[in-house]
Amino acid sequence: MKPSTPPTNYRPKNPLISPRFGDIATFNRLPYLPDLKGKQVDVAILGVPFDGGTTFRPGARFAPRAVREASALNRNFHPTLGVQVYERLNVVDGGDISVNPLNLQTTFKNIEKHVSQVHSAGARAILVGGDHSILLPELRAIHKKFGKPILVQFDAHTDTADSAWDEKYHHGTPVRRAIEEDLLSGSDIFQIGIRGPLTSADQESYCREQKINTLSIDDFYDIRKRDQFFHLIHSKAQKGPKKKSRPVYVSFDVDGVDPAYAPGTGTPVVGGMTSREALDAVRKLKGLQICGANVVEISPPYDHAELTSLLGAALIFEFLSLMASE
Amino acid sequence: MKPSTPPTNYRPKNPLISPRFGDIATFNRLPYLPDLKGKQVDVAILGVPFDGGTTFRPGARFAPRAVREASALNRNFHPTLGVQVYERLNVVDGGDISVNPLNLQTTFKNIEKHVSQVHSAGARAILVGGDHSILLPELRAIHKKFGKPILVQFDAHTDTADSAWDEKYHHGTPVRRAIEEDLLSGSDIFQIGIRGPLTSADQESYCREQKINTLSIDDFYDIRKRDQFFHLIHSKAQKGPKKKSRPVYVSFDVDGVDPAYAPGTGTPVVGGMTSREALDAVRKLKGLQICGANVVEISPPYDHAELTSLLGAALIFEFLSLMASE
Amino acid sequence: MKPSTPPTNYRPKNPLISPRFGDIATFNRLPYLPDLKGKQVDVAILGVPFDGGTTFRPGARFAPRAVREASALNRNFHPTLGVQVYERLNVVDGGDISVNPLNLQTTFKNIEKHVSQVHSAGARAILVGGDHSILLPELRAIHKKFGKPILVQFDAHTDTADSAWDEKYHHGTPVRRAIEEDLLSGSDIFQIGIRGPLTSADQESYCREQKINTLSIDDFYDIRKRDQFFHLIHSKAQKGPKKKSRPVYVSFDVDGVDPAYAPGTGTPVVGGMTSREALDAVRKLKGLQICGANVVEISPPYDHAELTSLLGAALIFEFLSLMASE
Amino acid sequence: MKPSTPPTNYRPKNPLISPRFGDIATFNRLPYLPDLKGKQVDVAILGVPFDGGTTFRPGARFAPRAVREASALNRNFHPTLGVQVYERLNVVDGGDISVNPLNLQTTFKNIEKHVSQVHSAGARAILVGGDHSILLPELRAIHKKFGKPILVQFDAHTDTADSAWDEKYHHGTPVRRAIEEDLLSGSDIFQIGIRGPLTSADQESYCREQKINTLSIDDFYDIRKRDQFFHLIHSKAQKGPKKKSRPVYVSFDVDGVDPAYAPGTGTPVVGGMTSREALDAVRKLKGLQICGANVVEISPPYDHAELTSLLGAALIFEFLSLMASE
Amino acid sequence: MKPSTPPTNYRPKNPLISPRFGDIATFNRLPYLPDLKGKQVDVAILGVPFDGGTTFRPGARFAPRAVREASALNRNFHPTLGVQVYERLNVVDGGDISVNPLNLQTTFKNIEKHVSQVHSAGARAILVGGDHSILLPELRAIHKKFGKPILVQFDAHTDTADSAWDEKYHHGTPVRRAIEEDLLSGSDIFQIGIRGPLTSADQESYCREQKINTLSIDDFYDIRKRDQFFHLIHSKAQKGPKKKSRPVYVSFDVDGVDPAYAPGTGTPVVGGMTSREALDAVRKLKGLQICGANVVEISPPYDHAELTSLLGAALIFEFLSLMASE
Amino acid sequence: MKPSTPPTNYRPKNPLISPRFGDIATFNRLPYLPDLKGKQVDVAILGVPFDGGTTFRPGARFAPRAVREASALNRNFHPTLGVQVYERLNVVDGGDISVNPLNLQTTFKNIEKHVSQVHSAGARAILVGGDHSILLPELRAIHKKFGKPILVQFDAHTDTADSAWDEKYHHGTPVRRAIEEDLLSGSDIFQIGIRGPLTSADQESYCREQKINTLSIDDFYDIRKRDQFFHLIHSKAQKGPKKKSRPVYVSFDVDGVDPAYAPGTGTPVVGGMTSREALDAVRKLKGLQICGANVVEISPPYDHAELTSLLGAALIFEFLSLMASE
Repeated sequence: MKPSTPPTNYRPKNPLISPRFGDIATFNRLPYLPDLKGKQVDVAILGVPFDGGTTFRPGARFAPRAVREASALNRNFHPTLGVQVYERLNVVDGGDISVNPLNLQTTFKNIEKHVSQVHSAGARAILVGGDHSILLPELRAIHKKFGKPILVQFDAHTDTADSAWDEKYHHGTPVRRAIEEDLLSGSDIFQIGIRGPLTSADQESYCREQKINTLSIDDFYDIRKRDQFFHLIHSKAQKGPKKKSRPVYVSFDVDGVDPAYAPGTGTPVVGGMTSREALDAVRKLKGLQICGANVVEISPPYDHAELTSLLGAALIFEFLSLMASE
Repeated sequence: MKPSTPPTNYRPKNPLISPRFGDIATFNRLPYLPDLKGKQVDVAILGVPFDGGTTFRPGARFAPRAVREASALNRNFHPTLGVQVYERLNVVDGGDISVNPLNLQTTFKNIEKHVSQVHSAGARAILVGGDHSILLPELRAIHKKFGKPILVQFDAHTDTADSAWDEKYHHGTPVRRAIEEDLLSGSDIFQIGIRGPLTSADQESYCREQKINTLSIDDFYDIRKRDQFFHLIHSKAQKGPKKKSRPVYVSFDVDGVDPAYAPGTGTPVVGGMTSREALDAVRKLKGLQICGANVVEISPPYDHAELTSLLGAALIFEFLSLMASE
Repeated sequence: MKPSTPPTNYRPKNPLISPRFGDIATFNRLPYLPDLKGKQVDVAILGVPFDGGTTFRPGARFAPRAVREASALNRNFHPTLGVQVYERLNVVDGGDISVNPLNLQTTFKNIEKHVSQVHSAGARAILVGGDHSILLPELRAIHKKFGKPILVQFDAHTDTADSAWDEKYHHGTPVRRAIEEDLLSGSDIFQIGIRGPLTSADQESYCREQKINTLSIDDFYDIRKRDQFFHLIHSKAQKGPKKKSRPVYVSFDVDGVDPAYAPGTGTPVVGGMTSREALDAVRKLKGLQICGANVVEISPPYDHAELTSLLGAALIFEFLSLMASE
Repeated sequence: MKPSTPPTNYRPKNPLISPRFGDIATFNRLPYLPDLKGKQVDVAILGVPFDGGTTFRPGARFAPRAVREASALNRNFHPTLGVQVYERLNVVDGGDISVNPLNLQTTFKNIEKHVSQVHSAGARAILVGGDHSILLPELRAIHKKFGKPILVQFDAHTDTADSAWDEKYHHGTPVRRAIEEDLLSGSDIFQIGIRGPLTSADQESYCREQKINTLSIDDFYDIRKRDQFFHLIHSKAQKGPKKKSRPVYVSFDVDGVDPAYAPGTGTPVVGGMTSREALDAVRKLKGLQICGANVVEISPPYDHAELTSLLGAALIFEFLSLMASE
Repeated sequence: MKPSTPPTNYRPKNPLISPRFGDIATFNRLPYLPDLKGKQVDVAILGVPFDGGTTFRPGARFAPRAVREASALNRNFHPTLGVQVYERLNVVDGGDISVNPLNLQTTFKNIEKHVSQVHSAGARAILVGGDHSILLPELRAIHKKFGKPILVQFDAHTDTADSAWDEKYHHGTPVRRAIEEDLLSGSDIFQIGIRGPLTSADQESYCREQKINTLSIDDFYDIRKRDQFFHLIHSKAQKGPKKKSRPVYVSFDVDGVDPAYAPGTGTPVVGGMTSREALDAVRKLKGLQICGANVVEISPPYDHAELTSLLGAALIFEFLSLMASE
Repeated sequence: MKPSTPPTNYRPKNPLISPRFGDIATFNRLPYLPDLKGKQVDVAILGVPFDGGTTFRPGARFAPRAVREASALNRNFHPTLGVQVYERLNVVDGGDISVNPLNLQTTFKNIEKHVSQVHSAGARAILVGGDHSILLPELRAIHKKFGKPILVQFDAHTDTADSAWDEKYHHGTPVRRAIEEDLLSGSDIFQIGIRGPLTSADQESYCREQKINTLSIDDFYDIRKRDQFFHLIHSKAQKGPKKKSRPVYVSFDVDGVDPAYAPGTGTPVVGGMTSREALDAVRKLKGLQICGANVVEISPPYDHAELTSLLGAALIFEFLSLMASE
């Protein structure tokens, strides 16, 4: 996953020529390149405008557009990680994955296929959901390309529920389904920010049985536990076969942060971390081999002043910076 | 469909005892009566919190709750129709029909079954959607009970599209599907407020072939044409078998009015009628046998100051007043 | 009520020196003059930030501030009435009448006293409510100064209710109370825009008994009836004792217009007139002796993009133009 | 105050049968039971839709409805306190206490009487205001049943002001009035989150004289002081007569948290604690005998994306969890 | 200005493959083609994200993006004009004209140059402002290519003001400046919807002197006057030299419609026409040679539920339909 | 800069006579005194309604009005600093500085001149922007009166950019321009809260070269570094010539705090400090000679529930309290 040699071919539009509020909105004002075949691209940012797996407030189907708008404030240099992203990586806006708003299974197939095409073209994908159900087909594609990844999941919920209304696939189940499909091992899953009332005490036992690593919001605010948790991620990641690092997939559900910071989401849970703490935690993944990432559950109809979309755009930049720092 | 003899058993809560903004929100502050069996009820108002058939802005799943809130300003006497609704009819809030947000077919079955149960209990149903796809299962139940009704549809769209993404059932197709299932005859359909750019010129031909009666927005503002159109509805309705009046179903998609009056909707089309004109048009159905009615496509996340929910609540009162005036 | 000889002493701030969005917000960017004694003022615009008489959505207490902001777009010349307002009238912002948000009776006394002081200073008052309950103390002051006026009331409601929760004074009763206090005669009351479901059929009988003149929204859209109604106002106004014109008081409850035009209000009723039609109707009062006016029931927390406050500001300008046209 | 033996009779509606966004909105989707007489109920959640004691932004009258909606995301198990609430307690939605929006004294009497009836039925009450003035009649009922309680108050303001506009009863005075009526002793009052500019330096002296315990926001962020403060509450609570624990009443004014977390409130003060810190602080009351609780000053017209209502719903669950943990 | 022979090369994205809410937002979901040179394009839709000429509420710089989003509901067939737009015309999204938010003169030069390039490529331009100041540089380009056009202007304001704060160029002056630069003759200007208080009576005299044709909002509602006015436009347009039709430029300031229909604008004036009436009026231009058009003064920060942007998108479709109907 | 001897002449309006939501809105409900000549005033709060230097979201021109409204909750005593502000200082609302929305240079001249007039009258100025470009003319006036001040700047951005679109003066450049004009020395600049992606790595080098002191957001959360930073400010401030303290200017760009706390701003950057932390940091300046201060970049069209304006009002009170504590 070595980034391309500079100078890169794809750069964000220059704000001094075209003001930030102007022209076609693409992710980070990057070139729109829906077909990667034969192109030298390191990372494609893709929208997945699908909220057919939502069980409370819908609206995430409008997130890719909203994040494209909010990412207009994109810049190049990450001062904390010390990396000039667009001089290290060729990044493009790969457009949206074709979804069927009325059919989850068709959509899942499209997602898996499209992400695999990105992989075939030698690039990694950052996905902008959409609700969290899209994680499952992504993991199917990831698994095909990279084998079982380590999953780092920022979330208020564990997403390990079983069926609802006899439906196995919705935004509360992707992690359970992924384990069942053997795309992930429970002990490779690291969940951060889990909180709030649970449906029942039994919900915790599934996670325990599967050996899922959970950093509850209470533990998150215990600095010692937080440090240990990230240490564990790193040590796990370094134990790949043949001494190679293992690939890490980062899934960021914006309800992992407090609704004050991310009001535009579908199933908000009060009492979460701040945006700053979240960004800081993401940066702790520096040095890992990020094989892909997503940011999900942004619901623009419930957002205000683009707060949540701006967070989504900031997270994309963090993911890119991690990839550029490898 | 003769209303019950006064005094009625079910009355809205008295605002002088419990202020309008207080207590549990039910439709029109009426008693909540989810099971009608053995009760003397004339009309049940039911929510259908389903937006799984939406192709653009979602959110209609929250409409029943929003309309319950907005209907707090409900009153008893209709000054234009001259009827005291709750002294003529026993009306209740029948709760919500159980929906499956992830499965349109299950939801359709539930709707058909639930409406049929209302019919079995000797009552008529007024449904608060939900998106317009719910019209189809409603018509299935209506057809079973009343035979083929006359459909009076307020709408910006004809809802006679064929499949989208190979899906036959969504909020743009219920009228076509109902014709195909022989629940309706095209010439018994009366559409009011149709406007806006069409996908293609061919869309108009289907309506013509099926002999659907259309009062486009341009024709609506030609008073002569408008009068003729309503005259036609009345003459058609009186020509039931054995000289009996035929049952009339009223379906009101709020995008039939201009988005200035109904901003909270999923597929707005500028250039519609005003709320007043719409209410006035509904009242022209006085004297017909209303076998059921719905108001659909209210999307609260896009609403402001309850404008659209207030319209929904006003329409329910119009429907009740028509039923009380028979 | 003859306006002062030009040149006038009080003029709106010049927008070419201080931009419209700048500086202290006063009504129409006029000088703030809380004490009129000894000043040559023709009209004082006063705020009444009181919503203690509200029975549904509160918030009208913030209306004077909101209307001050919205009135920044104020200009001088009324093209339809053909009058240069500020060259004919000395107008000031008289500040707010001191209210007690916890005590309706104290507030009523303050209003009556303050308006009487304006009258003593030789000026007329235009009041910006506040809820409609403030009409009663205003009429007390008006009656003291001018005797029984003709009341022209734009409203969705007749405001002739009796007590609610044993309270005689709230925003649904001022007209009934004013008749009881003999501040008004029923046959001198002209209500425009009345509509919507009524509490009961009995509500209409009170108005009939009192011989209140009502132009329902249905009648409003019957141009012949509308013209007759305004003709009646004019003929009534000219029949003062000793062949003098009688004073006319104009009370504009913004729920008289449709909530699409005035979303920011407390008890909205769909199906009203448009802003343009309302402004046009107000202008039909040209030639009458306007002894005072108010605009009430603007609730800024429910407003959007200042729609309702802008309407309030426009109405103030209409009132001033009527006064300047006498 | 021992909770009922499981299995309980009253349970929240199952979200897998009726989706969270569906059906009549009750607190936590619990059964609506306005009359508790003869029913085995442990806790009744009651709305108090009254904002007649508000001195700045009104709107709290709509809070019970908004919190009912927001509490749809309610679940059963509290992971930090480790308790399955609805298996330990019979909880119901007791409806709204009848208020008179125009008369504070009548409303106060209704509140006191209604809460006493809940107590007579053997249940405790959790109240959802309304403005903070409702605390006084609640304390009257609490005092009658439990004697003088310890008051734990989360708030930006001390609510110990004296009259405003000669009115003794409004949302800034309940604590002072309660002391004067000997419902509370100053030294039994524990205030958390107090901050912001004060009217005058004298305001602090009243609290000092009355020996009110104050944890200012500055002290709150001094962990040692925070711990001491909660320690003091616990030690005070254990010193009841006859070695019995003393009853503790928790009053949570949402302006205790920062307006970023609770924008929908009447008198916001910037610089408050976060939602997470507030929930955490509430949990520190574990083990105390909670005789009642309220959450007040939620003003939905100023809320966004239900942020403040969601916090209100979360607080109710914390209160229930404390009660279930005794 | 003959449209290209079908089949056309540029078509909107198919909503049945990519849902309307998905993928990069371009005007009407058309191909993005910033460089027209050598391409067979009939019409280019261009954004002008500039609000540096605004004197009250800013925000129009975000209009091109907002209209791109709202135009997702675009369709092909205009039922009233009876034309299949995209089968008659090659239309593209030409991107945004490069603006300098800090320099009006530079921006004006860019606009003139860019529009001239569109003309050189054999295409016509539809511009989406931006504030109304952009009309002036557009007219400079139009004049160069087509000579003096007839201007049909929908607006609340005449835009014939002189300087403000000694600045000659702002959104209140473009029409006066265009006359001074001899880009337009006063008698070729047709203004529709003019209303509201004017700065002074003198403002009307300039329009009279220049023989500008004005259809005030009062006259607009006098059907006879309205018809005469449009008749005059048509007869003027047919009197080009050598019996050729003269080119007509349509400039639509959204404050021409009532703020209820277009809340998202900078200098709203209550009392305007409805969206439907505006669309209807635009269609009356059928048969004229439309050499260009713009829609200006949409200010998304003040919009709600995309009302104003949807109107903007609808107007673009009307302009295209007029061009396709020639 | 010694405050005036009490009793002071200018006091905020008494909320017990005029409720906080009433009457003309001035800063902190203080007397409006546009001309200070000959008046004994210590501090004038002035609005600068200018956003002509904005490069992304505009709207700051409405900030002075919004902050005036929000400052209605103003009180007198600062409990942490222990000072009764209005008994120590004569403070007035000095109105707005005359701006030219179309001309930055004219506006800059007006600002410099107006602030100098305040200085001439023996008062200090607190400015409420407007965008951050207004800092430059302020510093010109400050420099003339006080010499080179120490600048304490709360901000997400360093504002040391060079030109954009060849424009040297905009809201991203005032600090660089001030250094170039020798109004400030780089080593006297203390920036707090800097964060987010930078345009390039080079941006950091300018700050380093100029020896600007930067407390990045990461360093801010390292308490040791934070303390050292403020220690450095104090030690620097005490090293004025002749052992006198040096004047300190405080500039607070609200994007210094996280957008969850200040959504109403033009160029938001997620990951900032909380309001409480910001207020706390401002208070650490206690004891310094504050020669002036501003709060900038509040953009009301993007605000919600006045969150950002309330923060602005709170900051003004902090500045006053610092000045009153000297």
